[in-house]
Amino acid sequence: MPAAKATLLISCIDRPGIIARVAGHLFDLDCNIITSDQYSDDEDGHFFWRIHFESKSRPFADLARDLEASFAGLRPWEQLRWSLHDAARRERIVIMVSRLAHCMIDLLSRHHALELDADVVSVISNHPDLEPLARPFNVPFEVIAVPKGGKPAAEAALLKRLGELNADTVVLARYMQVLSGDFLRAWLKPIVNIHHSFLPAFAGSRPYQQARERGVKLIGATAHYVTEELDAGPIIAQATTAITHRDSVADLARKGKDLEVSVLAKAVRAHLNKQVLTHRNRTIVFE
Amino acid sequence: MPAAKATLLISCIDRPGIIARVAGHLFDLDCNIITSDQYSDDEDGHFFWRIHFESKSRPFADLARDLEASFAGLRPWEQLRWSLHDAARRERIVIMVSRLAHCMIDLLSRHHALELDADVVSVISNHPDLEPLARPFNVPFEVIAVPKGGKPAAEAALLKRLGELNADTVVLARYMQVLSGDFLRAWLKPIVNIHHSFLPAFAGSRPYQQARERGVKLIGATAHYVTEELDAGPIIAQATTAITHRDSVADLARKGKDLEVSVLAKAVRAHLNKQVLTHRNRTIVFE
Amino acid sequence: MPAAKATLLISCIDRPGIIARVAGHLFDLDCNIITSDQYSDDEDGHFFWRIHFESKSRPFADLARDLEASFAGLRPWEQLRWSLHDAARRERIVIMVSRLAHCMIDLLSRHHALELDADVVSVISNHPDLEPLARPFNVPFEVIAVPKGGKPAAEAALLKRLGELNADTVVLARYMQVLSGDFLRAWLKPIVNIHHSFLPAFAGSRPYQQARERGVKLIGATAHYVTEELDAGPIIAQATTAITHRDSVADLARKGKDLEVSVLAKAVRAHLNKQVLTHRNRTIVFE
Amino acid sequence: MPAAKATLLISCIDRPGIIARVAGHLFDLDCNIITSDQYSDDEDGHFFWRIHFESKSRPFADLARDLEASFAGLRPWEQLRWSLHDAARRERIVIMVSRLAHCMIDLLSRHHALELDADVVSVISNHPDLEPLARPFNVPFEVIAVPKGGKPAAEAALLKRLGELNADTVVLARYMQVLSGDFLRAWLKPIVNIHHSFLPAFAGSRPYQQARERGVKLIGATAHYVTEELDAGPIIAQATTAITHRDSVADLARKGKDLEVSVLAKAVRAHLNKQVLTHRNRTIVFE
Repeated sequence: MPAAKATLLISCIDRPGIIARVAGHLFDLDCNIITSDQYSDDEDGHFFWRIHFESKSRPFADLARDLEASFAGLRPWEQLRWSLHDAARRERIVIMVSRLAHCMIDLLSRHHALELDADVVSVISNHPDLEPLARPFNVPFEVIAVPKGGKPAAEAALLKRLGELNADTVVLARYMQVLSGDFLRAWLKPIVNIHHSFLPAFAGSRPYQQARERGVKLIGATAHYVTEELDAGPIIAQATTAITHRDSVADLARKGKDLEVSVLAKAVRAHLNKQVLTHRNRTIVFE
Repeated sequence: MPAAKATLLISCIDRPGIIARVAGHLFDLDCNIITSDQYSDDEDGHFFWRIHFESKSRPFADLARDLEASFAGLRPWEQLRWSLHDAARRERIVIMVSRLAHCMIDLLSRHHALELDADVVSVISNHPDLEPLARPFNVPFEVIAVPKGGKPAAEAALLKRLGELNADTVVLARYMQVLSGDFLRAWLKPIVNIHHSFLPAFAGSRPYQQARERGVKLIGATAHYVTEELDAGPIIAQATTAITHRDSVADLARKGKDLEVSVLAKAVRAHLNKQVLTHRNRTIVFE
Repeated sequence: MPAAKATLLISCIDRPGIIARVAGHLFDLDCNIITSDQYSDDEDGHFFWRIHFESKSRPFADLARDLEASFAGLRPWEQLRWSLHDAARRERIVIMVSRLAHCMIDLLSRHHALELDADVVSVISNHPDLEPLARPFNVPFEVIAVPKGGKPAAEAALLKRLGELNADTVVLARYMQVLSGDFLRAWLKPIVNIHHSFLPAFAGSRPYQQARERGVKLIGATAHYVTEELDAGPIIAQATTAITHRDSVADLARKGKDLEVSVLAKAVRAHLNKQVLTHRNRTIVFE
Repeated sequence: MPAAKATLLISCIDRPGIIARVAGHLFDLDCNIITSDQYSDDEDGHFFWRIHFESKSRPFADLARDLEASFAGLRPWEQLRWSLHDAARRERIVIMVSRLAHCMIDLLSRHHALELDADVVSVISNHPDLEPLARPFNVPFEVIAVPKGGKPAAEAALLKRLGELNADTVVLARYMQVLSGDFLRAWLKPIVNIHHSFLPAFAGSRPYQQARERGVKLIGATAHYVTEELDAGPIIAQATTAITHRDSVADLARKGKDLEVSVLAKAVRAHLNKQVLTHRNRTIVFE
């Protein structure tokens, strides 16, 4: 029988014995833990656990059924949330872009180099410009234009299309439209965005212009989950790079591209590998 | 006759021929340029120039007198500001601290290792705690307490003392009091402060607490000139370091100390070496 | 009864069920796991585990006795090595220096700021120069000179003194003498050294000179355990910083000091926190 | 008449008055200095100068002729080398690759985004694999295979092709063949290579394997000019990134790709912008 690999994510109130109970139960199910990462938040007593494990004797579906049946019984649990992820199932991701190519090319290149544990099922843009650059990567490129006044219709089309594509995760790879609260309340799956500043500084539009005006000596990039409040969702990854007085806004945009690319790629990889849990508008990232 | 070394700082509207005129004039004065750094701000047409040079034949006082007499004649100048600094004159700096020792110890250690081109003429604190740690460095340690309601009196005492010390530059090395507008309007010489965040994010009090609450993935430190608006003066140096969800506020404070130390030291060195010019609430730092 | 906190380090051949068995056993002993970090080396099948846990009902001595009696019984074990560390016991460390103060001052400052979970029981130097700088930290400063031809006698004195001090760990904080193979075979406890290059580049003497001559664009620092082969022991921490053609050897030495300080402090903290295991001349560092 | 922009690179023995003479001469030729960077090597007395300037009244050809006629007369010069570069002339670069796409895609993407002040006139590979990924960038992709025993013939074909292409600079973007001394003595124009380690550590083959075996805590990338001694030419740019014991050789290769890309791009940009001078197997990089 083929071995199944799976990732189990758990969060609950921290109580003695959780690790022993769950580890013992997995062993009874003939599973072997490959990696285990945990974190206890001292401020509010929550416990977070990521277990990557394999079953030598059960296929994933059986494992999922057995855990579903038995997990609640490993009590006491308080405020338990848990999810089980089949490592053999590749997530379906949709990349959204506008006119800047760098993040799209980088993600498609990594996809092509087999670095992303996912299938990029489509690139969706509000402009046709980048289609030629996506072509060699053999991924569909679709345009959903957002004409002036046409945002509700465009978002309805997007929502429909994401559903048809059966998308798991949307990656905003310098998509220059703000998704509305209505859209976000309708599309409840994860959306990862890259913002070109070290949030919370320089949220909103034209962050490189803002950075130049304030005279900062470093610029940053922030990958975060999208929430209704603009640029205020849980941060997954951030980085900065040094700049000087010589750097014009155009120089900042050029230097920032490299940051955006690496920060977004890091966040997307962590997300796809089920290394990210969210808690109180913050993330726990098990690296 | 002993050689004199000097640094000339110039800012003016950029016009053709400035470099040729000034370089030729210095050559006529028997001076040799050691390093030269320049910057033209394309946005508003300003030109900034730092020239470090030596005179083999004139002592500094003669050089200063000659330049004073001749400089305006190298016209046309527009919006000219210039200053000449004797490289042999050591600035007199005062370090101000409260209860955290790390920045003070670092600056005193660098002073002791002859890394700072300045004399630390006193350490002034609002608390006596750090006195034993300053003692081996042979620098006076003075206490000017700031009791509740006693800030105006304390600032008057500070102003008087800085005058007696003939201080050139004040370094706030984690001095936990905000200097009032009245004080700043009375003391017009440079004050360098270290703030423990990547400004403009997390200005004001308890930045590590703010950082933890927002869930950022890096923390920063910012050295800047003090102006009347809190934490809003021209930034001289900044750096960040990565953090994770595991880091408590206490961990951030510990990790941040290393950043504060290195950022403040870098800024103080650049300031003392006359590598910093300010323009429109930004700095030009010639490294 | 007071709670005991302890750290358990385990290495063995990786086999299914280890985590379940040990976690279950600790739970049976009324212990609660606070943090757990593990690593499996795919190349040779070794498994490494660090468990930080607390016992609410047993003092450390009882815990140690119970584990000693029961641990081997949690078999099957292959190539098992394990050790148990009382979190309440502070290691006794000796700092060794020569004439450069920066690493010593930094470690003593961190000790003073309660950042190191250890007692610095002595500073030993082959020169008396740094004694005044150690004085405010209330740590003994001892001189064991190493005159020409006097190395065997000096090392004998050092060995005797370390024994009297009951030292657990020796930190070479820019100690400019190479410890002989004879000494290392006699003193079997850990010695942490800081080398001022990114090893394996520029091992041996004058690494900044070597770096300048090769024309590298970054310099580094490496903290490692001392072994008989010079600068070739297991690396605990490394970092680099950018340099330019402008930097003289003296500039490299100045810039490098900051690196040395932070890399050594990071390594010493990890070592004291029992986060470091060694395996085949490499380290596993659980951060 | 159209304005000409040009870059003048000078190296000579440092003597008083050089800056004044050249700046004055350029002013007499109705030229205005835009940026000027200089460096004096204290060890051997050499002076290096990069002047970027514009002529409002002369086209480049006239400027070059006038400078050619007059430059030697600005004496005394000792060991003078100088070159003048037309900023309007785009260099012709050839990218060489094997089977790894990341550096090629990155350079072609930057070329496409107008970040490189050059024309990529061809991609030449010893394998056909990457042709589809180069296609959307509208650059010719040519294969010059290197069969066993066929290196002399392949290098002859390469030499002929570079000549036909009138290439100025060759960029080895993970080209996995060592160019022979015979080839390098026949092709005297610059060749920029990216090596996937922080040289001088881990020169030669399989540096990530070497890094893993030594147990270093950071990996690096180095861009350098190719010389006959393997991986020993003048270094243009370097960077490192942190790794841990968890990183397999495959992880290092993946993490290293991002470093290679950014270090090579930085070096190529500096080279194309005439910011790099070489001296005694080292580079001066005016940033």
